[in-house]
Amino acid sequence: MAEPADPAADAPRVAVVGVGLIGGSIALAARRAGARVVGWDPRAGAADRVCDELAGSLAQAVAGADIAIVAAPVEALIATTSEVLAGAGEETVVTDVGSVKQAVVHAIRDARFIGGHPMAGAETVGVEHARPGLFEGATWYLTPTPATEGVRLERLTRFLTSIGARPQAIDPAAHDRLMAAVSHLPHVLANILVEGAVDHPLSGGPSFRDATRVAGANPDLWRSIYVANGDALIEEIDRAVERLGVVRHLIECGAVDALRDWQHAAAGQRARLDRALTGETTEEIRVVVPNRPGVIAELALRLGEQGINIHDMSLAPSADRSEGEVAIWVAAENAPRARSLIEEVAAG
Amino acid sequence: MAEPADPAADAPRVAVVGVGLIGGSIALAARRAGARVVGWDPRAGAADRVCDELAGSLAQAVAGADIAIVAAPVEALIATTSEVLAGAGEETVVTDVGSVKQAVVHAIRDARFIGGHPMAGAETVGVEHARPGLFEGATWYLTPTPATEGVRLERLTRFLTSIGARPQAIDPAAHDRLMAAVSHLPHVLANILVEGAVDHPLSGGPSFRDATRVAGANPDLWRSIYVANGDALIEEIDRAVERLGVVRHLIECGAVDALRDWQHAAAGQRARLDRALTGETTEEIRVVVPNRPGVIAELALRLGEQGINIHDMSLAPSADRSEGEVAIWVAAENAPRARSLIEEVAAG
Repeated sequence: MAEPADPAADAPRVAVVGVGLIGGSIALAARRAGARVVGWDPRAGAADRVCDELAGSLAQAVAGADIAIVAAPVEALIATTSEVLAGAGEETVVTDVGSVKQAVVHAIRDARFIGGHPMAGAETVGVEHARPGLFEGATWYLTPTPATEGVRLERLTRFLTSIGARPQAIDPAAHDRLMAAVSHLPHVLANILVEGAVDHPLSGGPSFRDATRVAGANPDLWRSIYVANGDALIEEIDRAVERLGVVRHLIECGAVDALRDWQHAAAGQRARLDRALTGETTEEIRVVVPNRPGVIAELALRLGEQGINIHDMSLAPSADRSEGEVAIWVAAENAPRARSLIEEVAAG
Repeated sequence: MAEPADPAADAPRVAVVGVGLIGGSIALAARRAGARVVGWDPRAGAADRVCDELAGSLAQAVAGADIAIVAAPVEALIATTSEVLAGAGEETVVTDVGSVKQAVVHAIRDARFIGGHPMAGAETVGVEHARPGLFEGATWYLTPTPATEGVRLERLTRFLTSIGARPQAIDPAAHDRLMAAVSHLPHVLANILVEGAVDHPLSGGPSFRDATRVAGANPDLWRSIYVANGDALIEEIDRAVERLGVVRHLIECGAVDALRDWQHAAAGQRARLDRALTGETTEEIRVVVPNRPGVIAELALRLGEQGINIHDMSLAPSADRSEGEVAIWVAAENAPRARSLIEEVAAG
């Protein structure tokens, strides 16, 4: 009778270099998927909770790894990736998780390296928020080059799929332009809006609050992102300025019909983007509720009892906080039922 | 024994011209405060539910009114206000509720007119959403001029206070600049962002969704606001473009320290604006929860049971919707208690 195969022998060995929110979540997810995870982080103790083993040095962490993941801060990405490649074996696949891809892909000319960027976890930081489900269903961009061997891309893809992510190949320049448009520019504009409002005695309704929610987010992270994606971000800023120029001209001419068309087109574009993002059509339901403790709970509970998920929610309290307008987005198919439930709660 | 005074004799007679969300809510609030409300709206039936009496014509509605309120669409504001003044008596105070003030204040040179703008109800439309509490605690801007008689301003102020609002005098130009900065520009930028994202295959994380929530809102209303506040809005667009130029330069130079300072300053400005808006310091609590129906309910309920109000809430589902990150803002004094309650729910 043959010996049963040792399952650990097939378990991939994963090195996580930099154990914060992203690195820690990769470690937890990889262990859940059966991998053996060796972590390394210059901040002693950060990796304790989430890895199988802590290495004494970066070189020790990556030695013998099947997959090495660089989850270092954006500004340290190229240096750390180089160091990882220096310590890694011939067979290791090395990847990173930086929000900007062109710089690192251009700088690192090593067939073992494939750039990566998971679309998850942008809003919190720290290993204490790490969780194994962070990447479930999340797009994970990969930037293979003509030099990338199929076997490495396949191994990395299989690993990412095992932790719940959806790998998607993208050209690094296209990636950076996309991020500049949908993430980096919104952060810049949020700051621009608070800067413009700060001279005024009183500021902001719901539109202002929503638009400025990310203003000033994590200065150390974002200064690095702005600079690392400088070329694409500058291009998006220039495009935004150009479009502002067009609108400015329409306003100056009093072109009400063109402005209505512009506003209407934006509504359609927003709806299409929503569908692309959620994979289904959502519908917005607005309702005014008394702002007593527990009312949002009651509202959400009633929807929950009917198995209706809330896709998005935005709460705008009235000035005296005695009541508030709640906007709730649900799947279009649930909207009629949701609307009547919500109206019942609001009326009661 | 003297006859008891007829309370109706002292009840102010209020004419509401244009009975949509704002006009209808004024009517309901005024009646609750003891006024007699005569409504007029060109759309037959709109005013049925909310007024004491429907007039057959605008002139009939305003004849004998103590206070006449013009709640017409922005583009009809000047014409309708003129018509109201033509029909109103010598003693009537006439006001409007338009989102833009300079144009109407300059056009209407009549000592009976005082411009107004309540900070409420911008996000929904239609008399079916009218409610008496819409203005509770809401700032209600008034634009008296040197020609305004004290007695009229006092009567209008007393009326607005009786319906729960907080009247605040402001120069019309300052009002329009304020609105351009905190309301009209955010709407323009939301459109600009969706326009920029629409070329991309996939779009948007939480920052994008928050920033574009108002994109394409109510095209008929907003085209009029953009044009009516054209001068101030163009100035804000120019200022935004100028600030974008500064940031662009910092990015181009790779000025990471200056960019960190800029990002940090925006965080401070946002916090100050929040305090100004809510009158108290709020604190943000972020937590990841499984996205099962009812979980937001449970979370809100637990806070409600402890008498903790939710000041603002933002929900960002994970890509596969199996879990979501919830950001909840509560009064700073409640934050430690709220945090431990929330963490309990998230862990359970």
